[in-house]
Formats: sequence, structure tokens, C-alpha cells
Amino acid sequence: MNYSMIRFVLSWILRVEGMLMLLPCLIALVFREQQGWVYLILAVVAVAVGMLISKRPLHMEIYPKEGFVAVGLSWILLSCYGAVPFVITKEIPSFLNALFEIVSGFTTTGASILADVEALSHTSLFWRSFSHWVGGMGVLVFILMLLPMKNSGSHMNLMRAESPGPEVTKFVPRVRSTARILYKIYLGLTVLMMLLLLLSRMNWFDAVCISFGTAGTGGFGVLNSSCAAYTPVQQWIITAFMIAFGVNFSFYYLMICRKPGEAVKMQEVRAYFLIILAAVCVIAWNVHSSYEGVGHTVRDAAFQVASIMTTTGFSTTDFDLWPSLSKTILLTLMMVGACAGSTGGGVKVSRVLVMAKAIKEEIRLLLHPRSIRRVRLDGHIIQEGTMHSIMAYLVAYFLLFWLSFLIISIDGFSVETNFSAVAATLNNIGPGLDQIGPTQNYLAYGVVSKIVLIIDMLAGRLELLPIFVLMYPGSWKTH
Amino acid sequence: MNYSMIRFVLSWILRVEGMLMLLPCLIALVFREQQGWVYLILAVVAVAVGMLISKRPLHMEIYPKEGFVAVGLSWILLSCYGAVPFVITKEIPSFLNALFEIVSGFTTTGASILADVEALSHTSLFWRSFSHWVGGMGVLVFILMLLPMKNSGSHMNLMRAESPGPEVTKFVPRVRSTARILYKIYLGLTVLMMLLLLLSRMNWFDAVCISFGTAGTGGFGVLNSSCAAYTPVQQWIITAFMIAFGVNFSFYYLMICRKPGEAVKMQEVRAYFLIILAAVCVIAWNVHSSYEGVGHTVRDAAFQVASIMTTTGFSTTDFDLWPSLSKTILLTLMMVGACAGSTGGGVKVSRVLVMAKAIKEEIRLLLHPRSIRRVRLDGHIIQEGTMHSIMAYLVAYFLLFWLSFLIISIDGFSVETNFSAVAATLNNIGPGLDQIGPTQNYLAYGVVSKIVLIIDMLAGRLELLPIFVLMYPGSWKTH
Repeated sequence: MNYSMIRFVLSWILRVEGMLMLLPCLIALVFREQQGWVYLILAVVAVAVGMLISKRPLHMEIYPKEGFVAVGLSWILLSCYGAVPFVITKEIPSFLNALFEIVSGFTTTGASILADVEALSHTSLFWRSFSHWVGGMGVLVFILMLLPMKNSGSHMNLMRAESPGPEVTKFVPRVRSTARILYKIYLGLTVLMMLLLLLSRMNWFDAVCISFGTAGTGGFGVLNSSCAAYTPVQQWIITAFMIAFGVNFSFYYLMICRKPGEAVKMQEVRAYFLIILAAVCVIAWNVHSSYEGVGHTVRDAAFQVASIMTTTGFSTTDFDLWPSLSKTILLTLMMVGACAGSTGGGVKVSRVLVMAKAIKEEIRLLLHPRSIRRVRLDGHIIQEGTMHSIMAYLVAYFLLFWLSFLIISIDGFSVETNFSAVAATLNNIGPGLDQIGPTQNYLAYGVVSKIVLIIDMLAGRLELLPIFVLMYPGSWKTH
Repeated sequence: MNYSMIRFVLSWILRVEGMLMLLPCLIALVFREQQGWVYLILAVVAVAVGMLISKRPLHMEIYPKEGFVAVGLSWILLSCYGAVPFVITKEIPSFLNALFEIVSGFTTTGASILADVEALSHTSLFWRSFSHWVGGMGVLVFILMLLPMKNSGSHMNLMRAESPGPEVTKFVPRVRSTARILYKIYLGLTVLMMLLLLLSRMNWFDAVCISFGTAGTGGFGVLNSSCAAYTPVQQWIITAFMIAFGVNFSFYYLMICRKPGEAVKMQEVRAYFLIILAAVCVIAWNVHSSYEGVGHTVRDAAFQVASIMTTTGFSTTDFDLWPSLSKTILLTLMMVGACAGSTGGGVKVSRVLVMAKAIKEEIRLLLHPRSIRRVRLDGHIIQEGTMHSIMAYLVAYFLLFWLSFLIISIDGFSVETNFSAVAATLNNIGPGLDQIGPTQNYLAYGVVSKIVLIIDMLAGRLELLPIFVLMYPGSWKTH
């Protein structure tokens, strides 16, 4: 294990997090809030310590193992340090609760332990929402752009460990350039959303925070009622952008730079829109009797479907009161999640698609034993190795899911609550059902359960492997 | 597709089912019940029709495809005809409900639509429990012993399609002899259980029916209170035999005939006992406050754990009233299920074991990319093809699970009810939680939901493939 390289990456994490903490200071300046000083001091300390320990290692190389360990530890460091301001400002006095809140932020989950969000200072509200934006595209992908490494394989090993989806698409040969393009699309869409929300007369602070929450598919709001208080137009804007940020970013890249025809043909994106459309129709039909007017029904159905499918977690209504069918559809969307290569979480549409095809293929193979196993996506044959790792991923996902479900049931909440709590954290969504429904929060869970759910949020965001590698004893053996 | 061969197999199913229906006639004779005439007439009709259509085909061969189709259709025919007596005797007037009940019987599920079991005649109660025993080891495995086929591959293709577990173990080179040994062990254990129950002063009718239900890991009782009314000694006997019938039958074969040392070393059997022990301890600790005395606590915990883990489905207490942790442990045991090669359902301990090892292996491979992927069970390396089919099985299992969960939620029952209903039918257990808990039944579900649950029971018993092959359009193309 290249320990000095890992220390080097961690020192960069501290430096970058320090810089990021300067933004809430600006907000504190505008609203004249005392909390700004805490963020300022912590920012200075982080940058200083980061500079101090950033001794350039002899070998600037990252092998797969180091990649996973570096990413896993980076996220833990990022979260632990990011939780400190909440504790010092006494807005969330318990460190565990503060950690839960900021892990929920960075992993773009949006599960909160706060009953009264509006009691927070603007400064901390901003930091909370900003963490979604930082975590959405990935903080190491950001550092990649700053960090020069000779060996481009090292870049790839870092990026692969942090990015969602079964395969990392390189748009251009150099990984750093790919990261830059991704961040440009990300920033562009976010700014566009802010402008539209401002045009719809949302106040600027809400517009900024909601845009961060949407872009990262996070879901922290600034009001206790999440998005229910916004106007229909504003809700439709949020719905549209939630869906937009759940699309595979390759789609935008193809769209803008090269081949719009290829973009439209992407099977994953098609399936994604089809699932959203179907879910909205069925839910609208299922709940229409409790609404007056088609417009409101469809708006609420579309908002909730987009929010859950993209794993954002905003809400405009208490969907825990919906009938079973609608709740089960939402639970299903929670598991499927958004497209690979987007900021959304969950299992990802492409994995579900590949698996459905694989099962069809297994049956065909059973009937014609001498034919060759071949699964295609977008015309490309999926490699046997990729298939294997997708399947292993799914099995690991269900094992972790079930283990967490089992452990948190010790607290004695209902089976529905516990099941949806794991689904909502492991898939980085936020609100669940019953005692953790959209009008509730996670405060009541015990210490052990909160730790389990924190691990689930991290494992969900980093797609299991970095967290598994950290917990696997063999990783720490020197060889 | 060798249609004449499939017709030939189906004609044998009718003949055998006709013979089996003579047994309830004997019961009717003893209790002097009119219902016996219905069974007698149906038996004669079945044998007659079976003889009539059993034209010996030119090619007595069964290829994998025919194997799956034959097994799938056989089970459907068996069930449809087996439901008829309930309808004619007007004990279950609706055909769909009667079908649900008998499919639940043959698939050894034990999920009932009857609120008052004790209202049935002894004749029909016997037929219901007897169906567990017939379905437990497999009716085609039985026919294999009678049916001479030149090509031993044909035998294997039939047996593989009907038997649970990732791989069919042949104890001896000839498949027919293996089937005979299996049935001998099965019959021996069943008779032993009956004798012990009789010794414990259970009345003979209950002893016979309960033994059938235990041997097939079915779960239909003869009393409305399932097994709660029996004495502690009788409950412990049932517990012990439920556990015994959940053990891989290879264990007994090794034990009796050849190598007891090898039997004790079987990793699956060890894991199975370990899981049972752990679950009993945790549940006993979790529920002890609502009981008086350790003896009663442990007895109830052990009975329920054995019943759920082996997918039998008897109960001595309403475990739906237990705390969340215990209910979640039971849900977990539902998914894991019994050993492969036993009469129990579920995913099977060996599959879970192999998957856990595979994930560990994937992580090791990630850290040491140049090493070779190798998963062992009982010292043998698991073939890449077997791994692949286990994973595909698990993924298909979860897709079918979720699809069913989604469809039956239309009826508007609670999420917990629907989730446990699918778990309880797909894993062939019987009772679930909430509105289908051990003191409830499945009557209230709508037509569509009942059909879905019937498919789930069949798919669960036949381990998905035969049912999938039947529903796959490509199967019916001539080539």
C-alpha cells in the first residue's frame, strides 16, 4: 500500500474542503450571522493543516487498491471535518447527528435528523445544501482536475472508485479532460436552473440552495415543508431539472459536442424516461380521487416520481398517505434509481436493463445449450467480466441491504419504516415511509442504527466497493 | 419440441394422481364420509383418461427444453386436477380458491385461503396434507422410478428441472436408483415421525397429517390453531423433524451408507444449523419479557425458527405480535430457506454461502487483479458456469419478487402484508406478517393477486426456470 500517496490525497481533501468552507462565510457576511466566524476559522485550519501534511510522495501512482482506500478514507475525512461546524455553532450539538446530517449531504442522500430546518442559520443551511453539490459530481473528480499525475492509470483508478455506474466512460482519451467536461456540464445546468428559478420569482437564497440540492440529486430543502410551499411553476422547474440531473451525462456530451442522433438512441436514457412516464401515469390514476383537478394530480405525481427515481428526495406532498400501490411503485423506483453516469444513486437503470437481458439470455441458453452467451447494450456486447461484476454488485447490494435491515430493526420501529430507511439511505434518496416519511426525520434511531445508516449512505454513494475494501481485513496487509 | 413425449409424461401424471386419490377414499371409508365418492370417481376418471392418451412416443427422449416444459406443465395439470374435488364437494366452491389451496399444497407452501380449516371433511383434510408429501420430494422424481427410458440423460433432464438446489447430486451413477434412495430416506423419516407422534399420544389422523406437512415442509395443519394446541413434547418432536427435513438429503445418504465423517463436514449443513442456533438465541432473548419461564420461550422461538427457516409454516404462537427485530429475523430466514437437496424452499443456504464467498473473492480480485477467481464449497472449486447460473438465479429471483410485490399492491393491503405475502409464497413458507399473519389467511386478495401468488408458489417450488421457460415465447417455436 502506497501510504504516502494516500496521505497526499487526504491532504488535498482538507485543502479543498477548507476552500469550500469560505463560501458559507460569504453567506454569513450577507446575512450578518455570527456563525460565519466558525466556518472561517475552520477553513483556515483545514487549509493550513492540509498544506502542512502534503508532502509530495516519491511515487505519484495509484493502483486499484489504493484508489478504493483513498476514496473511502477521503469521504470519511470530508464528512468528519464537514460535521464540525454544526457542532461548534451548537446548531446540531451531538457529533453523531451532525455527522449523519453532513454524510447525508455529501452522499446526496438528503435524509435529515432535523425536525425544524428553518431554525438553522442561513450560513449552515447553505453549507448543508452546498454539500450536495460538492458530493454530487464527486470531490475527488474535482481534485483530479487540480492534481497532476504522470500515470493516467492512476487518474482512472481514482475516478473509477468514486464514480457511479458499471463502467466509467471516458469521453476523451485523457481522464483529466473528461473530468473537466463533466464539471462544465454540471455547472452549466446548475446555473441555468438558478436563473430559471430566479425568473419564476423565487428568492435568491432558496433558488441557490434548491438548485444545489437538485443538481446533486440530494434533497435537503430550506423550508420545513420541503418544496410544498413553492408555486406550481417553480415545482415544475424543479421536476424538470431533477429528471435532467438523473440522465447519464454522456447524453449531454453526445448532444452538445458530437452526435445528437446517438444520444437519443441510448437505451438506458430511453428506459429511464419510459419508467418515469409509466410511473407518473399509474400513480396519477391511483391517487386522483383524493385530488381536485388533473393539473394538481399530475404535478404532484410527477414531482414525487422524479424526486424518488432520481434519488433526490424533495417532496410536495406526504406520499406516505398514498395508497399501497403508489407507495410500492415509489419503493421500486428507489431501488432502480437514476441512470449510470448521472449524479443520482440507486442500482442504476443500466444495471437493471443488463440484468433483465441477462436473464432472457440465460433462458435462451438453457433452450439452446450450444449457442454463445451474449448480452448487448446500445449495440455493444457486454464483456463477461463486466457482467460478472454487475451481478456480484447486485448480490453484494442485497446482502448489505438485508444486513442493515436486520441490525436497525433492533430499535423496534415498524418493518415498513426500517425497510424504507435502508432503501432510502443505501440508494441516497432521503425520505422513506411510515415513521421516516417525508414529514418525519431520522432523529429517533439509536446510535448503532445511525452508524449503520451512515455506512449505508457512504456505501450507496461510492457503490459499495470502497467501503467494502476498507472493511476487508486483507486490504491492510502489506505485500 | 417433442410434443408426443410431453403428452406421454402428462398422461403418467394423470395416472399417478388418480392412484394417489384412492388414499383419501380410504380415509372416507374410515370416517364414513360422503366426500369419498367424489375422490373415487375422480380417481377412476384420471386413471382412465391417463391410460387412454398414453400412446408411447417413438422417441423416448427428453432434452433440457422438454424437461422444463414437461415439469412446468405437469405441475399445472397436477394442480388443476387436484383442485377439482374441493370444488365438487363444495368445501371450497370457487375454483380459483381451490386451485390456490392445492397449489399451496403441492408446492409445500401451506398458505391457506381457509379461515376455518376444521370445517373440512377428514377426507379433504387428508388430501390437502397428503399433497404436501407428494409435492415435497417431487412427483416427477416419483414417476422416474416407474418410467423406463433408454437415455439416462432424459432422466437427468427431468430430475434437474424439478429438484431444488443449484446442482443435482447423483448418489449413484443411475438416476433411477438415486430417486429410489431419496424416496426411501423420505419415507423412512416420515414413518419414524408418525410413530414418535403416536407414542406421544397424538391421535392417529393428526399424526399422519402433521407428519405429511412436516416431511414436505408444507405447513397445512388440521386445527385452526395450527400446532398451538399440541403438548410441549409433541411440539418438540415437530420442531426436530422440521429441522431434519430441511437438511440436505446427501447428509443422510453419506451418514447411513458410506461416510459419516464427510457428512458432518458438509459446510451447508453446518451453516444451516449455525443459523438456526443463532436465530433461536436472538429471538428468545428478544421476546423473553412477554413469556414466563425459559422453557416456553425457547420452545416457541425454536418452533417458529425451524418452521420458517425450513419453509414449513406451522406456528405455535402469533409471531406477528413479536417485536420488529424478531419479525425481521423471520423475514430473513424466509429468504435464506433450507438446504439445497432438502424438501424445503427459499433461496437455499448453499446459494447464500456461495454468494458470500463470491463477494469476498471479488474484493480479493480487485486488490490483486492478476490472481485467479476461485470459490470453493466443501473443498471443491465451484465451476464458473455454476457461479453464473447461481447469480442469474438470484437476480431473476429478486426481479420476480419485486414484480409480484408491485402487482399485488393493487389490492391496497399494507406494504408489510404484501412484501411478506410474496416472500411467503415465493419461498413456499405459508404465513406472512400483518394481514396474512399466522392467525390470518389469503382469502381477501383479489383475483389478479391470487393468480400472481399461485405463479410465485409454482416458480418457488420449481426454482423459477420451468415457469420462466413456459412464459418465454421462444420456447414454443419449432426449430
